[in-house]
Amino acid sequence: MVIPEENPVDASNSPLHLSDAERLDRLRLIRSENIGPRTFRSLLRHFGDARTAIAQLPDLARRGGAARAGRICSAEEALAELAANKRFGVSLLAPGEAFYPPRLAATDDAPPLLGVRGNLESLTRPMIAIVGSRNASGAGLKFAGVLAHELGEAGFVIASGLARGIDQAAHRASSASGTVAVLAGGHDRIYPPEHGDLLLDLLGAGAAISEMPLGHAPRARDFPRRNRLVSGTALGVVVVEAAQRSGSLITARIAAEQGREVFAVPGSPLDPRAAGTNDLIKQGATLITEAADVITAVAPIMERPLQLRETDDDEPFDFEPEVYDRTRIVNLLGPTPISLDDLIRLSSASPATVRVVLLELELAGRLQRHGGGLVSLI
Amino acid sequence: MVIPEENPVDASNSPLHLSDAERLDRLRLIRSENIGPRTFRSLLRHFGDARTAIAQLPDLARRGGAARAGRICSAEEALAELAANKRFGVSLLAPGEAFYPPRLAATDDAPPLLGVRGNLESLTRPMIAIVGSRNASGAGLKFAGVLAHELGEAGFVIASGLARGIDQAAHRASSASGTVAVLAGGHDRIYPPEHGDLLLDLLGAGAAISEMPLGHAPRARDFPRRNRLVSGTALGVVVVEAAQRSGSLITARIAAEQGREVFAVPGSPLDPRAAGTNDLIKQGATLITEAADVITAVAPIMERPLQLRETDDDEPFDFEPEVYDRTRIVNLLGPTPISLDDLIRLSSASPATVRVVLLELELAGRLQRHGGGLVSLI
Repeated sequence: MVIPEENPVDASNSPLHLSDAERLDRLRLIRSENIGPRTFRSLLRHFGDARTAIAQLPDLARRGGAARAGRICSAEEALAELAANKRFGVSLLAPGEAFYPPRLAATDDAPPLLGVRGNLESLTRPMIAIVGSRNASGAGLKFAGVLAHELGEAGFVIASGLARGIDQAAHRASSASGTVAVLAGGHDRIYPPEHGDLLLDLLGAGAAISEMPLGHAPRARDFPRRNRLVSGTALGVVVVEAAQRSGSLITARIAAEQGREVFAVPGSPLDPRAAGTNDLIKQGATLITEAADVITAVAPIMERPLQLRETDDDEPFDFEPEVYDRTRIVNLLGPTPISLDDLIRLSSASPATVRVVLLELELAGRLQRHGGGLVSLI
Repeated sequence: MVIPEENPVDASNSPLHLSDAERLDRLRLIRSENIGPRTFRSLLRHFGDARTAIAQLPDLARRGGAARAGRICSAEEALAELAANKRFGVSLLAPGEAFYPPRLAATDDAPPLLGVRGNLESLTRPMIAIVGSRNASGAGLKFAGVLAHELGEAGFVIASGLARGIDQAAHRASSASGTVAVLAGGHDRIYPPEHGDLLLDLLGAGAAISEMPLGHAPRARDFPRRNRLVSGTALGVVVVEAAQRSGSLITARIAAEQGREVFAVPGSPLDPRAAGTNDLIKQGATLITEAADVITAVAPIMERPLQLRETDDDEPFDFEPEVYDRTRIVNLLGPTPISLDDLIRLSSASPATVRVVLLELELAGRLQRHGGGLVSLI
């Protein structure tokens, strides 16, 4: 069995450290209406800092055809959130700051500010995510526990979603060695509520993370969104038991899109709780039956330096598109998703122009982004 | 689900049909001492017919250093075997004759004469082998039955080894649609003995095949040898349940060497009867959970024409090696297996010379052939 080295990833040699003022501005920007992690990242890249970006929001949204400007989070609201976080022991970290999970920081849609709580050192160690059915079998629960324990002994931190079933078994078995609970709601809105004690237990050696503000009760749509953080923090995701069309399979799909290893535990064809994991293996996931299988597969990945993904969105766009470009692009859009590439080709506009127009529409609340680079009008 | 076409393979447009005399000579040759299927094939290729080859045997064995000539099966013995076969309803077929399983005929070490019994048309239809533990779980037995039944409904004949457990379940569930029992002993020495009734049941729509003479009681070493016929007749082999280091895994290895598809049924890591099948999947076997998985995988193979494998052994060798070549080659051999390629390189003799010397040694009972083209002195 390979003993993993300390995670070789360090987002920078001199980690970022935000000033209080910049953290406040970034918090205002990410809590403003129609701003998601990707839009945040585009705005920050091109206006240089969050304060300048905030000042540009009304103008960008107006150009995007907003009936009214999107609501901007006030300094008072942001200060109140920071004060509440402090009382609750939650720190808000930006990608690149010390203790921000390095692999998560390298994803396209890393939370611009991640609320972290607990033993923050655990967030920088190599992680393996373990997920699976809430309604797991006894064998599945036992296997998840043994796997989490052995990976913990080998030096890995276990990431999971604090749900009932497999998540709970994985957290429980690694609470002494280090485990990270990735929350769908705010740090004070634990779901399911009866896992409050489990969370407190795991904060000693491990941590909890959330991109949501305190007080945010998780809604159904927050769970799939949260799942990108479960896989994003980790080298790979192990799916222990999953029926067909279950949430764990969404996590596996996101993990594959993020370039993470996807591992699945096989089961009898006669066991419906193994249908999802067997399907994953048919589709190319790695079959595992013990911790050594996982460790062998991730060892070479740990040796490679971690690269931040540069995307096309990082190109400059500090200009205002011509009206006729904007009209042509908007006319090409409709409720049916279309790819960015098709938009560029069909509009004959420059890629930068198309991206700016889409950003304006997004800030105006008129654009929906889908997987695979597809967009549609709302 | 794909409906399989009639097997497109036909070993020749005008199938071989041996004369009674040639069949008798071939039977004498294959029942003679130190003659296996590969040696038989070499001899027949190069002496043109079995009678000529038989006449050369003493000379070849003497050149190979035999203390005494290997025992040659007499015409009387061969006639007696043919008469007994006739009484028992067994026909002896040569590769290329009608009803010889076409895919088996294309293997390197196809039995020169295969004893067949039952509904011989079943031997020409596309086959899938189903194998697994004798000591199978209820779930494994159930799955084997469902799979065999569904593959049978889809037009496939099921090949297996008539053993207890998975074999029995697979034969039983396909006895109406067609199944082939591949025997390790003679047709009159069924093992296990209590499967005599199962055999009689399956002979209606299916068949039994054996390369052993009537009266041959199967020995332990006959079972691995028999397993190459189970996989050789089939497009692919499904391993349903197998513990580590079990016989079914030998069949899977032989199947892979023969270029057959290897399918494995997954199971829980906590179930020791799935350890072997899970390992097979880790090593590259295709995970299957239903008949459609098998059918989808073999459909493209069925569309390709079947090619007989030509091997290096088919090159001419109608010459007697020089004494010093023979000495040099024998000196390079010992109890540790060595590859044919290494022998050729180290001896500086021609490949044809090395092959003739090895054939002589084999006929002298001094050579052992191993997997992977390795040979050693006995």
